[in-house]
Amino acid sequence: MPEASAKQEYLVGVDLGGTKILAGVFNQQLKCLGKVKTSTKALRGPDSVIDRIARCVEDAIDECDLKLEQVRGIGVGAPGAVDTASGKVIFAPNLPDWTDVPLKKILEKDLKLPVFLENDGNICTLGVHHVELDGKPKHMLGVFIGTGIGAGFILEGKLYSGFNKTAAEVGHMVLEVGGPKCGCGNRGCFEALAGRQAIYKKIQNAVKEGEKTVLTETLGQDLADLRSGDLRKALRRGDKLVERVIEEAAEYIGIGIANLVNLLSPEVIVLGGGVIDALEDEMMAIIVETAHDYALAGTDKGLEIIASKLGDDAGIYGAAVLAKRETK
Amino acid sequence: MPEASAKQEYLVGVDLGGTKILAGVFNQQLKCLGKVKTSTKALRGPDSVIDRIARCVEDAIDECDLKLEQVRGIGVGAPGAVDTASGKVIFAPNLPDWTDVPLKKILEKDLKLPVFLENDGNICTLGVHHVELDGKPKHMLGVFIGTGIGAGFILEGKLYSGFNKTAAEVGHMVLEVGGPKCGCGNRGCFEALAGRQAIYKKIQNAVKEGEKTVLTETLGQDLADLRSGDLRKALRRGDKLVERVIEEAAEYIGIGIANLVNLLSPEVIVLGGGVIDALEDEMMAIIVETAHDYALAGTDKGLEIIASKLGDDAGIYGAAVLAKRETK
Repeated sequence: MPEASAKQEYLVGVDLGGTKILAGVFNQQLKCLGKVKTSTKALRGPDSVIDRIARCVEDAIDECDLKLEQVRGIGVGAPGAVDTASGKVIFAPNLPDWTDVPLKKILEKDLKLPVFLENDGNICTLGVHHVELDGKPKHMLGVFIGTGIGAGFILEGKLYSGFNKTAAEVGHMVLEVGGPKCGCGNRGCFEALAGRQAIYKKIQNAVKEGEKTVLTETLGQDLADLRSGDLRKALRRGDKLVERVIEEAAEYIGIGIANLVNLLSPEVIVLGGGVIDALEDEMMAIIVETAHDYALAGTDKGLEIIASKLGDDAGIYGAAVLAKRETK
Repeated sequence: MPEASAKQEYLVGVDLGGTKILAGVFNQQLKCLGKVKTSTKALRGPDSVIDRIARCVEDAIDECDLKLEQVRGIGVGAPGAVDTASGKVIFAPNLPDWTDVPLKKILEKDLKLPVFLENDGNICTLGVHHVELDGKPKHMLGVFIGTGIGAGFILEGKLYSGFNKTAAEVGHMVLEVGGPKCGCGNRGCFEALAGRQAIYKKIQNAVKEGEKTVLTETLGQDLADLRSGDLRKALRRGDKLVERVIEEAAEYIGIGIANLVNLLSPEVIVLGGGVIDALEDEMMAIIVETAHDYALAGTDKGLEIIASKLGDDAGIYGAAVLAKRETK
């Protein structure tokens, strides 16, 4: 591994997702100088995906008129269980065949730069904590509502990962025993009640059962190409079905948040992810009210529940924070 | 406050509960030399209860043929939210009129000895961690199933209490949205599904609806004096109703435990409390199986889920550990 020299002053943050790879280039003040997005093509398998990560990093650096040699380190957030010490992705539900993949080792060989790996929920939380909250709250939770529900916990000022390094799997906290089936095989998980797929499925099922929605006007009866943005538009047109489903999801999110408050007594909870980014105005008030309703008296004193402003960029910011810390 | 001298080598641990006060005297090796139990008489209010704590401590010391002057410090576990720094009980749901009670200050004045306060779930967890597990696991959770459900979290080797010092309120984690009403005002809390009161209520309701159980033979149709020990006896006589209710409670406990595993990735979870003490043989296998079923793959690798052997004494042991640490 090359030693960092005075010239190597830039950092790269990578957000590896099931459908897209995002790479951002940052200076030491963690200002984003430029970013590049590419599709993951997860079905092609780990080797091909790692190639695409390397190319995405190179493209982002080139986009900023920089050279690889000017980069000090690369942080990567991966969607699954990771071993941060060895830099392996142990298991990633949305990346086929990713079992014990030595991502750090391969990328370091390809790019000749130090690479640091973290779980994506943790990395987004790190980004929000450091960039949006100036690293101040000692106890902060990040909860990201997208296709699934991910999270990261900052406890006593540090990312908490626990014995198996798998902590903060909030998406599979059971909120409703016997509730809807989840991808993990259980029933009633947070993710199966309030994740994007859960929301879509509820609307699609209601349409099948004859309920009316403006969504079918543009998307047809099967609503195959539904996106979070369509839901926002439907809400603004006063669509009753979408309104009800989004309200229910926001209530479940509020209850999930309250469980975390009762268990961990955080100072700040930051919500993010595609669903929140698209529907913040429609969901946040319900989420906050429900969370305070369900939090035990005294546990939510002074608690702030806010939506992140980093949006889709929380991951690359957090990955850059990680790279900066590890190359100091 | 008197300085600790060489002669002051004993410690007292107090477990203040809603119905009883237990005080134990310990040597520096945390061997229990003797203990005394008295009723709390909570309805008489804080002043009277604190008097009773002081008397219980004096009786326990006398029982061991010791004098107050030989005691180095007193640890107290209280059933509610406590401010450990000021030594105040902020709020205790099972102790009427206990709001911002300066328990440490009053007891120190009465007994002329240093007093240290902690929440009871935390103190029991500390006792189990230190005395039963030699303080080894870095990430350990204690979950105590009694009238309510209390807990304590050892994270990164230390008791975790969070921003409002209220962490580990597992009893009010919602497991079943819209489920049975809980004392806290919400529905579907862990405690309302699997605490002692929940178990009793389920059996009593079933009897009202005409179901048969051997319990009515000795306790009458209203089952007013039901105790955990009666349930064990009924199970040994093959009582189908009690068997079903206890199985259901054990499954809920398993699901609650799995939520904690998914969120906190502990190495060891220790179960205790009156319900587990009385029904360990009948419940633990179901709890352990359900918890592993619901824990996400990878989060429960190497995880141990065990029943505490300290029983009712976890609180006084933990309180003695606290007193020892604080008077070092």
